[in-house]
Amino acid sequence: MIIVLRSDVSGTEEAPLVSFLSGRGIVFSRMLMEGCVVYVCTSCPGEDVCQMIRGFSIVEKLIPVDRKPLLCESEGSSFEYAGIVLGRDLCVIAGPCAVQEDQDLDALALKAASAGARMFRAGAFKPRTSPYAFQGLGRQALERIAAAGKRSGLPTVCEIPSESYLDSFRDIDILQVGAHNMQNFELLKALGRCGKPVLLKRGAGSTVDELMYACEYIFSGGNERVILCERGIRTFETVSRNTLDVSAIAALRARTGLPVFADPSHAAGERRLVSALSLAAVAAGADGLMIETSDRAEKALSDSAQAIDHETLAGIIRKASAIREIL
Amino acid sequence: MIIVLRSDVSGTEEAPLVSFLSGRGIVFSRMLMEGCVVYVCTSCPGEDVCQMIRGFSIVEKLIPVDRKPLLCESEGSSFEYAGIVLGRDLCVIAGPCAVQEDQDLDALALKAASAGARMFRAGAFKPRTSPYAFQGLGRQALERIAAAGKRSGLPTVCEIPSESYLDSFRDIDILQVGAHNMQNFELLKALGRCGKPVLLKRGAGSTVDELMYACEYIFSGGNERVILCERGIRTFETVSRNTLDVSAIAALRARTGLPVFADPSHAAGERRLVSALSLAAVAAGADGLMIETSDRAEKALSDSAQAIDHETLAGIIRKASAIREIL
Amino acid sequence: MIIVLRSDVSGTEEAPLVSFLSGRGIVFSRMLMEGCVVYVCTSCPGEDVCQMIRGFSIVEKLIPVDRKPLLCESEGSSFEYAGIVLGRDLCVIAGPCAVQEDQDLDALALKAASAGARMFRAGAFKPRTSPYAFQGLGRQALERIAAAGKRSGLPTVCEIPSESYLDSFRDIDILQVGAHNMQNFELLKALGRCGKPVLLKRGAGSTVDELMYACEYIFSGGNERVILCERGIRTFETVSRNTLDVSAIAALRARTGLPVFADPSHAAGERRLVSALSLAAVAAGADGLMIETSDRAEKALSDSAQAIDHETLAGIIRKASAIREIL
Amino acid sequence: MIIVLRSDVSGTEEAPLVSFLSGRGIVFSRMLMEGCVVYVCTSCPGEDVCQMIRGFSIVEKLIPVDRKPLLCESEGSSFEYAGIVLGRDLCVIAGPCAVQEDQDLDALALKAASAGARMFRAGAFKPRTSPYAFQGLGRQALERIAAAGKRSGLPTVCEIPSESYLDSFRDIDILQVGAHNMQNFELLKALGRCGKPVLLKRGAGSTVDELMYACEYIFSGGNERVILCERGIRTFETVSRNTLDVSAIAALRARTGLPVFADPSHAAGERRLVSALSLAAVAAGADGLMIETSDRAEKALSDSAQAIDHETLAGIIRKASAIREIL
Repeated sequence: MIIVLRSDVSGTEEAPLVSFLSGRGIVFSRMLMEGCVVYVCTSCPGEDVCQMIRGFSIVEKLIPVDRKPLLCESEGSSFEYAGIVLGRDLCVIAGPCAVQEDQDLDALALKAASAGARMFRAGAFKPRTSPYAFQGLGRQALERIAAAGKRSGLPTVCEIPSESYLDSFRDIDILQVGAHNMQNFELLKALGRCGKPVLLKRGAGSTVDELMYACEYIFSGGNERVILCERGIRTFETVSRNTLDVSAIAALRARTGLPVFADPSHAAGERRLVSALSLAAVAAGADGLMIETSDRAEKALSDSAQAIDHETLAGIIRKASAIREIL
Repeated sequence: MIIVLRSDVSGTEEAPLVSFLSGRGIVFSRMLMEGCVVYVCTSCPGEDVCQMIRGFSIVEKLIPVDRKPLLCESEGSSFEYAGIVLGRDLCVIAGPCAVQEDQDLDALALKAASAGARMFRAGAFKPRTSPYAFQGLGRQALERIAAAGKRSGLPTVCEIPSESYLDSFRDIDILQVGAHNMQNFELLKALGRCGKPVLLKRGAGSTVDELMYACEYIFSGGNERVILCERGIRTFETVSRNTLDVSAIAALRARTGLPVFADPSHAAGERRLVSALSLAAVAAGADGLMIETSDRAEKALSDSAQAIDHETLAGIIRKASAIREIL
Repeated sequence: MIIVLRSDVSGTEEAPLVSFLSGRGIVFSRMLMEGCVVYVCTSCPGEDVCQMIRGFSIVEKLIPVDRKPLLCESEGSSFEYAGIVLGRDLCVIAGPCAVQEDQDLDALALKAASAGARMFRAGAFKPRTSPYAFQGLGRQALERIAAAGKRSGLPTVCEIPSESYLDSFRDIDILQVGAHNMQNFELLKALGRCGKPVLLKRGAGSTVDELMYACEYIFSGGNERVILCERGIRTFETVSRNTLDVSAIAALRARTGLPVFADPSHAAGERRLVSALSLAAVAAGADGLMIETSDRAEKALSDSAQAIDHETLAGIIRKASAIREIL
Repeated sequence: MIIVLRSDVSGTEEAPLVSFLSGRGIVFSRMLMEGCVVYVCTSCPGEDVCQMIRGFSIVEKLIPVDRKPLLCESEGSSFEYAGIVLGRDLCVIAGPCAVQEDQDLDALALKAASAGARMFRAGAFKPRTSPYAFQGLGRQALERIAAAGKRSGLPTVCEIPSESYLDSFRDIDILQVGAHNMQNFELLKALGRCGKPVLLKRGAGSTVDELMYACEYIFSGGNERVILCERGIRTFETVSRNTLDVSAIAALRARTGLPVFADPSHAAGERRLVSALSLAAVAAGADGLMIETSDRAEKALSDSAQAIDHETLAGIIRKASAIREIL
């Protein structure tokens, strides 16, 4: 770490900083670089001490040289779940946005399976921007999702709204953290101790760095089975609901061995872009996809504007597998 | 609402949509506008039905004409708390970022009061990007905050991390929803029933619309005492940590009678911008400010890079009051 | 187009608007929709008249139903150039960032050709953020680029800084509009009359819509040979220099028949992401790629952080062709 | 500058870099910091050499300690023009968006003057996103603007579309660079030699840093009379057309002595926000404002959605002056 002093600092003003650093056992050389007085420190203290150093009025800025890798960077790796090696085998998770009263979930899961999906997803508690929008069927949906998973042989993935729901999710295989909750630290801490794999979605306004730190909350709690999922970021462009960040997929794969997935459905926000975004994500290195499907799309009626039918899903999986082969 | 059909739709393909609309009691005129077939509907169904309409493959898009105002738009108004009319009297909330072991909170609250602050804030549970950063002193800090509030005569404001902490916050006056939690819907629902005023911060990646909907979660639960707080949005610019959105302040004041505050400290991310952003926010119409202060800033040591000393605070309050007079 | 009136408008206040509309020959029905008075107009006037209508104080907003397609949407199509069908055959444009004194351009062009590139690019005038950065060798570079193109048999692509340089570019085959210049309308108008194909890069802060309008400036001048090029947009994420917007690639291909390219090099900003972004772009539907290459990358010395060597280029072209086959 | 090597580099691989640095006369100490080998260089070479250093495959990254201030930072200062000290006296520039056939420009300029404006602006060449929108009356408008300026006694400000128009602007007092042209480097270079003050608008997708560099193009050409103008940046928020960045105003004033203005009209995009944004800009430290006004706004007919009437203008100027007094 390098501490750069303000240019107008006189020597005597440095005394409190020098004694602070010495008191913390920080070793440094005082040098002149490009006209600035800098302290080149051979080690980097924790963030809290850094904040205190920044608080000295004579300090212009701190420049970290590097940082220790996070646990999830150094230790994160692909892992097996239910016969699939996540991070190695292409894994598509498919299913409807939200479970609805009159839906045949079993049929949906079977169709997803025969289209080539390896996991089944469905929403029980829908985090909705408006309190007046359909919020999901709640706990009763969880049972139906678990049952459909069993019947189809597909592991189930479902979004958990808060740490207080952990018990209700006992029959769900993989717990999803939604984009809105990526920095719900109480939830992340609880998932660190939950013993189940977690699919962690990137917040639409969050950086790749923040996603890694959110993952670290789960890792540092002892849970090393995390799937990272890029789902589009908020930008000025409105051609898609969010902008799928394929660079993030490539960057995440370079930083960690954990499986990196993409959710093209939420990034697109409309059916017609889903196929292109799916293939782009896989070409950028995504190990899996999370795709909204619907039975009713085939009857021109869908629960959401981005759900695709199972035939389209099968086509995407076929092409995505071929692309992964090429890489 | 207007339903615009795709341009290549033949008359017979419209039948399922027509019978769907009729079945839901939606009255419409079928018209030709600018070469498109459109259905001009005299009423607008709920969002769930709109989603279904969008799901028809012959539908190009839906154009809402307007929308019903939210409760928090039509009913939101200034309200009195502890002798301050929030939304009318300029109200500055000041205090340290996080409570620390060796801090004299009572002294801090008294200094804030004599600088002109009307409320006292301090953090007990700090939502931190990294799991390894200082997370706050937790429940023991809450007691000290409440005590400092009593001694100084200032109501207290403190961020609540999750709905499961409601009991612990019983001695805190105003519950703050942090930017990370703006769309933590479980927390919002719980706050709708909590009986205390809520200070709701806008998420850095959230729109003004989404902030209003988050507020509506609290309102629709029966709690109409909400303070909205702009604190900067995430943009490509790095000159400040986040970009304080003064247009949002003006727009929020036009949409609701609720008090609209700004947090210049978190938007700035560094001490030197706090004064300018504070005054800009008030000039744009902000009814109050939330400012990080520190005793130690005076001794060139601070708990955070953006905390200001109490003399600067007093100057800001003096100028902000004069500006509010002018408006 | 629908004109929505403010909710507090009394009938008599409508008279000036009604007479304005009638005077312009605009036919409309006055209706009540969702509690608002709206004028449903069967045709949409030009943007200038719309602006005037928005200027009436009783008008809340204008809602366009649709808009006439641009020329470049209805007429834009793939086109042949030098034996390559742009928009059908995968076309990779490769070459160094900027021509430098000591560079063997002929060798570079030949290496690009043997790696599978179909066109050769190099910069003569570099638009640089700082006036003190290397600005390119200028006119003398143009001759060398043209010569290298001839020797290698590859058509040449070069960025033109301003309309006043048109004469100097007479031996360059395809004129590139840089991202900074996407809305340099004087340049666009001149290119509409220049008789050469144009490669139009999207501005980092520009929408897909604005790119189409910039293209329309060239089209409406009579030049229908335009290549659209996505090169990353400016977002809050810093993991890549800009965020490659693969949705834009898919959306552009749906809107126009013109060839759509991507520039992964400038989006990435560093060598290690170029391959992943290239393949993602092609998987999303890109018809071509523009990639910075360098001879010196092989000797661990490069003119730019994102230039790749020719072996890597050959690998990308091989994989990209295989992916395009799959689509 | 510090050069950080990749962690997996062996000593012998460093030789080419060491000889490169020595050859360029760069003095450095090789040190171990936080487990990385770093070269602490006591001076910083130019950007071109830095690019070459980044090109070495053993280099992880370069960390600049600081940079030399730009000319426009060290030398930029307030300056007098026509009796107004720009950067000290509050200066409001007002006038219509674009000159139109049937406008009484003289009357508009006189009204602006009596409302308290110190300069008159109007558009002759309008840079429009669409080629089909009204592009301005062109050269004939310039004469009328200059005449109106003379009659009202107000200096005139007008946007110049390209360096080839310099002659036509001989009777205009201050040349404006529009946001679209902020990085039109050919234009900036020409303005560096033009001998007239320049009002330089920030691009909606450009950083404060890039604005300073654009200004440096003008400065380094010998023209030190530049007015910097913040006009809103492109973000995900749509409540205003662009997000007025008040932090940028404060940051620019800290970096340079040049006058810093704001254009609330284009940031707002609608009349109702103009007053709040104007006052916020001045409270943040803006030395002047550029505001669109219209005579017709009073007759409920306006040339643009954001133009305000002269009474509103007078109110803004009165309040803005009072706020500037307080600062």
